[in-house]
Amino acid sequence: MHWLIGLDWGTSRLRAMLFDGDGAVHEARSRPWGIRHLPQGGFDAALASICDGWPRVPVLAAGMVGSRQGWREVPYVDTPADVDALVAGIVSVRSADGREVGIIPGVRDGIAVDMMRGEETQAIGVLALRPELRGHARLLLPGTHSKWIEVRDGRIVRLATMMTGELYAVLREHSILGAGIAGAGASPAGTDAFDAGVREARDSGSAGVLTRLFSARALVLEGCLAPAAVPDYLSGLLIGEELRAALALGWVNAQTPPLLVGDELLCVRYRRAASVFQLAEPDTVADASAHGLWRIAQAAALVGQSTFARGVY
Amino acid sequence: MHWLIGLDWGTSRLRAMLFDGDGAVHEARSRPWGIRHLPQGGFDAALASICDGWPRVPVLAAGMVGSRQGWREVPYVDTPADVDALVAGIVSVRSADGREVGIIPGVRDGIAVDMMRGEETQAIGVLALRPELRGHARLLLPGTHSKWIEVRDGRIVRLATMMTGELYAVLREHSILGAGIAGAGASPAGTDAFDAGVREARDSGSAGVLTRLFSARALVLEGCLAPAAVPDYLSGLLIGEELRAALALGWVNAQTPPLLVGDELLCVRYRRAASVFQLAEPDTVADASAHGLWRIAQAAALVGQSTFARGVY
Repeated sequence: MHWLIGLDWGTSRLRAMLFDGDGAVHEARSRPWGIRHLPQGGFDAALASICDGWPRVPVLAAGMVGSRQGWREVPYVDTPADVDALVAGIVSVRSADGREVGIIPGVRDGIAVDMMRGEETQAIGVLALRPELRGHARLLLPGTHSKWIEVRDGRIVRLATMMTGELYAVLREHSILGAGIAGAGASPAGTDAFDAGVREARDSGSAGVLTRLFSARALVLEGCLAPAAVPDYLSGLLIGEELRAALALGWVNAQTPPLLVGDELLCVRYRRAASVFQLAEPDTVADASAHGLWRIAQAAALVGQSTFARGVY
Repeated sequence: MHWLIGLDWGTSRLRAMLFDGDGAVHEARSRPWGIRHLPQGGFDAALASICDGWPRVPVLAAGMVGSRQGWREVPYVDTPADVDALVAGIVSVRSADGREVGIIPGVRDGIAVDMMRGEETQAIGVLALRPELRGHARLLLPGTHSKWIEVRDGRIVRLATMMTGELYAVLREHSILGAGIAGAGASPAGTDAFDAGVREARDSGSAGVLTRLFSARALVLEGCLAPAAVPDYLSGLLIGEELRAALALGWVNAQTPPLLVGDELLCVRYRRAASVFQLAEPDTVADASAHGLWRIAQAAALVGQSTFARGVY
């Protein structure tokens, strides 16, 4: 039984997990050291600091750390991609303090011309946790860039990026829609204004939500929407659009909503939006990153087959 | 024959036109004194300065100067709105130097919950210039906020705002799509990258362009789009989406494109996008603001019926 250090190293955060030999997370740490916000000393210093006091065990990393702006550029693996393809694409880098860090490749969808880094590991984690989904599943990983991932026969076959979170942020911070509402943010659980935004997107039909975006301003001018409620309404418009588009593309339907993967705070608004669309309630999977790192480490023989894992995979 | 000073007073610019008694623009001036960028002394000082040396003749203004953040809030006139309704809604304000300034009301579409200030005057100008359009027309006024205006029997009956220009600006300046392309801007006439963006929007079908927005990044990562071409591609995506949505809503069709109203530099890209959609080539009307101000001044009896105007209206 070997222990493992798993890294989820994105653009804005570095998360580190120390796994025991059974694949359980013994300790987790998180720092604001995304690849664009590294401490002095760069990648080496960040790794040494976040692993301080941990045993010298294999290190496996996923995320933007493998991008052109990362520690080492790791070529994408093309769809369809399974665990073995990801393992074959791992590239190692040696840190200043002599650790070998394996970096998991991202996945590229050459047909849709789209790509991801980090989310492929979450998708593998979902399949490890929920093997019944290996046959077919649509995963939705909400975030700055939401990723929609289609899995078939245990392989990632399609992916699509929706810039929902980033659109929300730039419109909230830099457009007329955010004028005069100071620091007001969207409420975590959603509100009536959120639901109204979702309905507006849903009812925009094939024209789409950009024909309704200005309503976030017009309703305020009309006195129908409180300025403080604009962030919730805007969030509803954009999350609603994501679901409207997914329905238009046949990615999901009323009986088979997407499986939500990720932080509960993000997923709760998507579940609320799904209910406005009268979709069946989406299931949610948490901690997919940790499970994906452990599963890939197993397939790479960085760790043994744990008792825990043996039953599951 | 009376002379007239007409003001097109928007958010970012103040344009002043001195009309002679025939409705011809004797002199035009423009300053960066939009209602959010007034010189010291505010509205009074801006008016006195831009009219310096001009005769003391009636002043008629259109645009955001009549908004809540303007000189005097002028209540919107509801659709359907014609020249007489606009004239009836004019509110006057007296300047510090004793000029009476009539401010033309904006128009509100109570069904779509949308509104405009300034564009109603352009629409009236279009009908003055092109009386054959009074029966039915779809006008498209491109800009930060594009306005789509439907005219029927000489009245503004519907309007819709598309935030195309503002979306372009916030995505270009503040999102990942603009990363690493420094000061590169979109080329005035459009390029192959612009056409590619328009096609991507056109082909997004009922799902809409937000499902393809990330392609502006993915194509760069794939080496299929030069970073310097991203502004053109993004502009094509967003202008293409505007046309795609308008087609989906039945606002226009292949035989009847919108009538383009406004600055030639903005209209040229829309004409190019229309050709990618294989629409009939849109007609363009310039100087609609000046013609609208003169037409409304006539209807308000601020000026007489000019020889020029008599034949046209």
